[in-house]
Amino acid sequence: MQLYLVTDEPACRGRDLFWVVEEAVRGGVTMVQLREKSLGTRAFVDRAIRLKALLKPYNVPLIINDRVDVALASDADGVHIGQSDLPYETVRALLPPGKIIGLSAETKEHVREAENWELTYLALSPLYATPSKTDHAEPWGLAGLQWVRANSRHPLVVIGGLNGENTAEAIENGADGIAVISAICSAESPRTAAYQLKNTIQNALNKIV
Amino acid sequence: MQLYLVTDEPACRGRDLFWVVEEAVRGGVTMVQLREKSLGTRAFVDRAIRLKALLKPYNVPLIINDRVDVALASDADGVHIGQSDLPYETVRALLPPGKIIGLSAETKEHVREAENWELTYLALSPLYATPSKTDHAEPWGLAGLQWVRANSRHPLVVIGGLNGENTAEAIENGADGIAVISAICSAESPRTAAYQLKNTIQNALNKIV
Repeated sequence: MQLYLVTDEPACRGRDLFWVVEEAVRGGVTMVQLREKSLGTRAFVDRAIRLKALLKPYNVPLIINDRVDVALASDADGVHIGQSDLPYETVRALLPPGKIIGLSAETKEHVREAENWELTYLALSPLYATPSKTDHAEPWGLAGLQWVRANSRHPLVVIGGLNGENTAEAIENGADGIAVISAICSAESPRTAAYQLKNTIQNALNKIV
Repeated sequence: MQLYLVTDEPACRGRDLFWVVEEAVRGGVTMVQLREKSLGTRAFVDRAIRLKALLKPYNVPLIINDRVDVALASDADGVHIGQSDLPYETVRALLPPGKIIGLSAETKEHVREAENWELTYLALSPLYATPSKTDHAEPWGLAGLQWVRANSRHPLVVIGGLNGENTAEAIENGADGIAVISAICSAESPRTAAYQLKNTIQNALNKIV
């Protein structure tokens, strides 16, 4: 989950979502989350099945945002849940063994609660404020990230406002990976953007070791 | 499924959805579908769980619109799927045995295809045009209903524009039950509205026998 792409069709600026994802994966994206809030269920599943087929040769897991039914119907690799999605225990009970569950944490209370659960990753959301989203929680910031690193046993992904300039500091302060939407989906070249972010992450990880 | 209530919060005119449903059930509703298009998943499941607990003493099944994950998480009695929801085979594979699956049919092709499937009911949608909905398919009308009755092995529910005036003719022309939203949710007294519709249905059924 070093470089985790969260899809957003409008952020692709009119370009085909599948093209954007494949370019991003060629550039170095290691995990993809399909996030759809307005598609009908059948169209969502069709998209998930097509995306899974696209990602399989690259050995990149496909995670479905929120919808356990869509994940089951498309045999995706896992589900990402937010705090207003299904509770962890329900998702765990509905998914077959071995599937990935990732969870968004917006507060310290969420982080503490998540210690009881078997998560593949915890996503701190948002790390930074993003101008396009005003409905989300207080940003964690680097101090928040350090606190979580010291208080959570889970691998950590950070999301929200990540770009070429602030990725290294996120990794240096305890993130195991970064999740991005627009930094890749909206980039002139999603492949180059992914490649550069991946390099930045790996350089930062090497520095830590 | 003689008198099938499909919930719609806005149609309840500011009254509590649970109150409306319980009144309707006391009046004679025999099946309830929870339909939510804007609630988050967790809120949808919470509502489903609460509704199931409310309906249990009345022995009235709870059907979830579209969302198999919500049905599984709330242990609802079944799922209603439309033509842009999950395909029948997927729903059947995801649900435990014995759960209800109902399907909306808008065309003769849908009706023919449904002959291959084990459905608890087929819902002809819409039977009549409803002023509030302009995005739906061509109404079936009574001639369409007669055609379906002659060409389908499934129990038939009709939905769309049903009220006290046209319920009897729907039953007399082959419907096994009617599904309503506003005729009950928006009624001054949902209990009285349900009671009167149920009487109309039973009188029409007696007339057929």
